[in-house]
Amino acid sequence: MVPHLVTALTGPINELEQRMLESMPAIERWFRLEWMEHTPPFYCAVDLRNAGFKLAPVDTELFPRRFNNLTLEMLPLAVQAAMAAIEKICPEAKNLLLIPDPADRSPFYLLSVQRLMQIFHQAGLNVRLGTLDPAIKAPTAVTLPDGGELRFEPLKRQRGRLGLKDFDPCTILLNTDLADGVPQVLQGLYEQYLLPPLHAGWSVRSMLHHFQAYEELAKKFAKLLGMDPWLIHPGYGRCENVDLAQAAGVEAVRAQADAVMAKVRRKYKEYGIRERPFAVVKAATFSGGKAIVTLRDPKELDAAALRDAAGAGAGRVSLLVQEGVPTYERMNDAVAEPVVYMIDRYVVGGFYRVHAERGADEVLSAPGSKYVPLAFAPGGQLPRPGDKPGASAPNRFYMYGVIGRLASVAASYELEATDPEAEVYG
Amino acid sequence: MVPHLVTALTGPINELEQRMLESMPAIERWFRLEWMEHTPPFYCAVDLRNAGFKLAPVDTELFPRRFNNLTLEMLPLAVQAAMAAIEKICPEAKNLLLIPDPADRSPFYLLSVQRLMQIFHQAGLNVRLGTLDPAIKAPTAVTLPDGGELRFEPLKRQRGRLGLKDFDPCTILLNTDLADGVPQVLQGLYEQYLLPPLHAGWSVRSMLHHFQAYEELAKKFAKLLGMDPWLIHPGYGRCENVDLAQAAGVEAVRAQADAVMAKVRRKYKEYGIRERPFAVVKAATFSGGKAIVTLRDPKELDAAALRDAAGAGAGRVSLLVQEGVPTYERMNDAVAEPVVYMIDRYVVGGFYRVHAERGADEVLSAPGSKYVPLAFAPGGQLPRPGDKPGASAPNRFYMYGVIGRLASVAASYELEATDPEAEVYG
Repeated sequence: MVPHLVTALTGPINELEQRMLESMPAIERWFRLEWMEHTPPFYCAVDLRNAGFKLAPVDTELFPRRFNNLTLEMLPLAVQAAMAAIEKICPEAKNLLLIPDPADRSPFYLLSVQRLMQIFHQAGLNVRLGTLDPAIKAPTAVTLPDGGELRFEPLKRQRGRLGLKDFDPCTILLNTDLADGVPQVLQGLYEQYLLPPLHAGWSVRSMLHHFQAYEELAKKFAKLLGMDPWLIHPGYGRCENVDLAQAAGVEAVRAQADAVMAKVRRKYKEYGIRERPFAVVKAATFSGGKAIVTLRDPKELDAAALRDAAGAGAGRVSLLVQEGVPTYERMNDAVAEPVVYMIDRYVVGGFYRVHAERGADEVLSAPGSKYVPLAFAPGGQLPRPGDKPGASAPNRFYMYGVIGRLASVAASYELEATDPEAEVYG
Repeated sequence: MVPHLVTALTGPINELEQRMLESMPAIERWFRLEWMEHTPPFYCAVDLRNAGFKLAPVDTELFPRRFNNLTLEMLPLAVQAAMAAIEKICPEAKNLLLIPDPADRSPFYLLSVQRLMQIFHQAGLNVRLGTLDPAIKAPTAVTLPDGGELRFEPLKRQRGRLGLKDFDPCTILLNTDLADGVPQVLQGLYEQYLLPPLHAGWSVRSMLHHFQAYEELAKKFAKLLGMDPWLIHPGYGRCENVDLAQAAGVEAVRAQADAVMAKVRRKYKEYGIRERPFAVVKAATFSGGKAIVTLRDPKELDAAALRDAAGAGAGRVSLLVQEGVPTYERMNDAVAEPVVYMIDRYVVGGFYRVHAERGADEVLSAPGSKYVPLAFAPGGQLPRPGDKPGASAPNRFYMYGVIGRLASVAASYELEATDPEAEVYG
């Protein structure tokens, strides 16, 4: 179960790793203090890119899937974290209503839903599945690849509460990103805990808020460790409210890409990194587009590809221009990037997303990608203080867990900043 | 790493296990509500006896050793639990002072101390070892069997605070049971968190308080599950303040043993158990005695052995007369009993105490006992709802974890009841 992991790590990342291992008590205390002031996302998954010379999060998913790709050995950690989360949110909880993505009926996704149900059942809740699919009007069983079965039930809204027939949950857990907006049935549920909150949905969320929060945190965190924040932060530029049908809109994106890449070039020079910088452009908010444009030279910027990334037919859109962070991890010659999972403030596992046909500077979350659980030799995911940095997977995972958690604190800041019901003191 | 575990389970324990698995959400909620009202012991280890027809705790250690016998795969669980515990007690914590038992320098114990340091280091604290040994006047390194090293430092008391040279901890963790009383240096530390509290020490603690609290809890818990509390509770009798030098004192013990065994006989009859009842007599408070007297017939009661159990030269003593619970678990033909470890409110692992030369009705914590980590096939210690009860180790461990936690709630009640600084409302 231990992935055969070939890393091509050079100087700086080892220094970074060394620094994190040495600063473990300071780092853990820093997180504890952050979590005193801020509420962690109920769960999240963070995509990391490990370039050898830097390690950075590139995506933070607040409705994570693929729980089935976490190794079974780590499941007790997820259960324990879920217990801690429930205890904090609603210790009297009996029933949890899980609402999966109605649009995804792939076996992979159903196995992930099954795993989530298992985690919360073991944590001590009666878990049932409600579906947003209006076509399901009676309890419907779906068979899983492992022979198990999931039972989807139609939602039942009664005034301020949402439940199922004979099932009144105190907590509702969403596992659908609400990209198409918030369904009526989920609105105005003030009597129950709705997790994550509706403004974490993709119809509302903006990656610009997230990476702004992450930038702020990376600076604070880097200060704590006495290091350059760039080593853990992907530079980015904002293109808000641009019209890609106009040349001026495309030009605005090009200008941001130029600025991002100029900064990367300076940093590469500063650190003596012989790499060709690149940038990626993606929709900052949900606009129907899912493609990601990789730019090696801003002059090459293809307006059509950009419109595709932003979503066909979209009017004004917001785009995130992000520093391209190559990934230099390899598994059996295929390019790999780590994905770290958290429940509440705890790292509960992770996996490598591996793509045999993609390059180190390409996006791996594409058809053809595979998932290899991050499992560990005896010793679990614990860093071993005596080990040479970079020498052991456990050491590496501590660093991944730190950056994953940093992104999860950023998500917490993001959700606070965008909370439509936040009280304003002033 | 999975112990080859041969159990000789008959009807009732399977029913009990089945009931616990089915009632998991209710059980977990019950624990959550208990922990809302009561503070869990910082850590504890509970010895269980699995008789097939019943499962009961027979000892609850509030300064647990043998952390090195927990399987490494489960260490992340211990770290996560430690993180949760620290966050609750003192989120700003930087430094933890660990005070081990000065009388134990065995390699086994030192490895356990090393493991404890590792757990709390990974949880994000600077951990250093202070010693109560007055002979150690300067930092002293001790080499471990694995080549590692522990560094013991002399304690430094400054007015209300205890620390080491250049080390001011906010939390002090005791791993010595204080059987010889509370050293001056530990008294009056009101500015720091001292865990466990001093009244958990063996010079103060009484098993009678513990089992009284456990009896109360076993009744509540059995009511929740609609079952006979005897199935999870070892019957007991109290002999307080008896003088074993007098015939009347010995007679008082015999009377309690008679009463305990008469009850066991009735229960055995009720459940159709063809076993010969027995009782064990042990010191309820620390009195220098460590032996345990096993009684198959109260008439056989040996006053000399009893005095040995109570401690040579003791004056008036308190004894616990406990229902003997045979253990019917076997590992490679040797008698085994499970020991469950908790940190804060979480089960973090366990092992089997195995003794090749002892019988099912004998005490296994004796010279010659061995320790086999409770490790698990993929799936961790998670019960699998679909599995036939008794068919899989994971299912068994859930039940062990439930009874272990029940004893830890009892320890919490016990410590509240005996807290010398508790506020009295009235």
